[in-house]
Amino acid sequence: MAVSTIEWADGRIRMIDQTLLPNEFKYIYCDDLPSTWEAIKSLRVRGAPAIGIAGALGAVLGIWNSAAKTYEAFAAELKSAADYLVDRISRTAEENRCLQIPELKEVLLAEALEIIAEDKAMCRAIGQHGMALLNENDTILTHCNAGGLATSDYGTALAVMFSAHKAGKQIQVYADETRPLLQGARLTTWELMQAGIDVTLICDNMAAQVMKEGKIQCVIVGADRIAANGDTANKIGTYNVAILAEAHGIPFYVAAPTSTLDFALETGAEIPIEQRAAEEVTKGFGKLTAPEGVKVYSPAFDVTPAALVTAIITEKGIARAPYTENLNALRDS
Amino acid sequence: MAVSTIEWADGRIRMIDQTLLPNEFKYIYCDDLPSTWEAIKSLRVRGAPAIGIAGALGAVLGIWNSAAKTYEAFAAELKSAADYLVDRISRTAEENRCLQIPELKEVLLAEALEIIAEDKAMCRAIGQHGMALLNENDTILTHCNAGGLATSDYGTALAVMFSAHKAGKQIQVYADETRPLLQGARLTTWELMQAGIDVTLICDNMAAQVMKEGKIQCVIVGADRIAANGDTANKIGTYNVAILAEAHGIPFYVAAPTSTLDFALETGAEIPIEQRAAEEVTKGFGKLTAPEGVKVYSPAFDVTPAALVTAIITEKGIARAPYTENLNALRDS
Repeated sequence: MAVSTIEWADGRIRMIDQTLLPNEFKYIYCDDLPSTWEAIKSLRVRGAPAIGIAGALGAVLGIWNSAAKTYEAFAAELKSAADYLVDRISRTAEENRCLQIPELKEVLLAEALEIIAEDKAMCRAIGQHGMALLNENDTILTHCNAGGLATSDYGTALAVMFSAHKAGKQIQVYADETRPLLQGARLTTWELMQAGIDVTLICDNMAAQVMKEGKIQCVIVGADRIAANGDTANKIGTYNVAILAEAHGIPFYVAAPTSTLDFALETGAEIPIEQRAAEEVTKGFGKLTAPEGVKVYSPAFDVTPAALVTAIITEKGIARAPYTENLNALRDS
Repeated sequence: MAVSTIEWADGRIRMIDQTLLPNEFKYIYCDDLPSTWEAIKSLRVRGAPAIGIAGALGAVLGIWNSAAKTYEAFAAELKSAADYLVDRISRTAEENRCLQIPELKEVLLAEALEIIAEDKAMCRAIGQHGMALLNENDTILTHCNAGGLATSDYGTALAVMFSAHKAGKQIQVYADETRPLLQGARLTTWELMQAGIDVTLICDNMAAQVMKEGKIQCVIVGADRIAANGDTANKIGTYNVAILAEAHGIPFYVAAPTSTLDFALETGAEIPIEQRAAEEVTKGFGKLTAPEGVKVYSPAFDVTPAALVTAIITEKGIARAPYTENLNALRDS
């Protein structure tokens, strides 16, 4: 990403308010825990990695002005800050309980910044591994936004495109608009246009036709969670695209950090699928587009069976089937 | 349909203004040719059958106040009215050129009303044939709006549902919202709710997940044009749904009058696919939902290969593969 999605700037968190994109580009600043929490809750910052970073920095903000005199009092304040955010910061505090409070604060900020640095390195590594799968003049279809706006840097699926573009490869991208919240229309197109990558927006239901016309050489999407067998949970509509890719003989790639791998899940069937609010579908853009009171079914995500996944691109390399074996090997590498 | 989409009422055409649905239910009246033409052009009335009816009645309105004294003068007026509408009215005039002008006007109105009656009978027959394909408690997925709002009566795909419901069969329907113009969200849900049929709205990209959950027993869609081999042109996204149905072992039915069969087309590959305006995708919800200037690819419709079509439901009966043979036999029956 040409611009920084989220960073630590002068003692505050600076982030792009993603709810305003693409109509308005605006940074917002969070200088305490409540404003950070509000930003997460209102999807001003979104995507698992970026939310993790906002959480880590938010927890630091939560204790930055702490007047606690003892570690116990300080830890209690931190716990209440971290409880709804992240636990890496809490663990770091626990490990450094012998320090004086002012030093401890610095250690926690360093830890939060380390999370950002690791995220950046992860994105770049995914990009490097993934770009090897692309040929000159390939056109890639992507769904939702697994880009820099969901992380602190290059993103995951889009990292492959940013890396290829930076390396001088000619690529084009088709972006599904991704109903109901239009992350593809609003965010993915914006990021790619910012980077100077040739991007074309389509409605979700046009992907099959675009594939039939021979326009797509591969699909690359992100992942919320990947089971041990390679089943992949991601934004609703991903499974749809995977079936279409299979039907047209097009490779379907998932790009995600190994932190997304959940080996406690044998298969994706164990993942419960939450429902989103009906209004996101019927009143998504400030205007009623369906009859008042209509029933709506709106699963937040779906699970793509591993059999439809050609390869999983991680920061440690690329895994192919059989996934149970190869993802395990990758994690331990 | 509980309400009449288009009809002749007290010397004028009365139609539902479909651009206002579902927020507002309003009849508009056309009492001359320009207002009828405006209604067609602005999609206040839509769907091939309903547009045909509006055209026939509009042509009648175009000559209703004619002061022509000779058949030749009258025919010239009618020709200019019918040129951009329909030709059945013109043919009727030609066949009755021996009549006096006042009688001729009545004959033309009778012909237009006959078109409506035929359309109604066609819808009902499609409904009757199609409902035999449904089992008690079936749930049907449909795409776009092939309902009463596209015809003068029951519609085509929705006729099957209306007929089954009227016959006392318990059925449920899932309606794709159908981007970019949301005919499923705005019109199909509205029609089915009016008729008291259990309908649930989903975004287009959720159909695969709903099928995977075992919720759908069959898909029924309409058609703009069917080639001799059964390849079916219909609203963009239909081909997408057909692939998903195939992948989940779900029957995929097309419901359309035999007038939609185009035997001059050997296959669907000969049908050119027009592009719609980018703004329908980027500003469809009354608000810009993508970056200014983004490239958009928006095919108006797609062609579903006959191999994905389980059966074609017409007013003359049901055709199955091999279509080239069986559609021919059906037409001549």
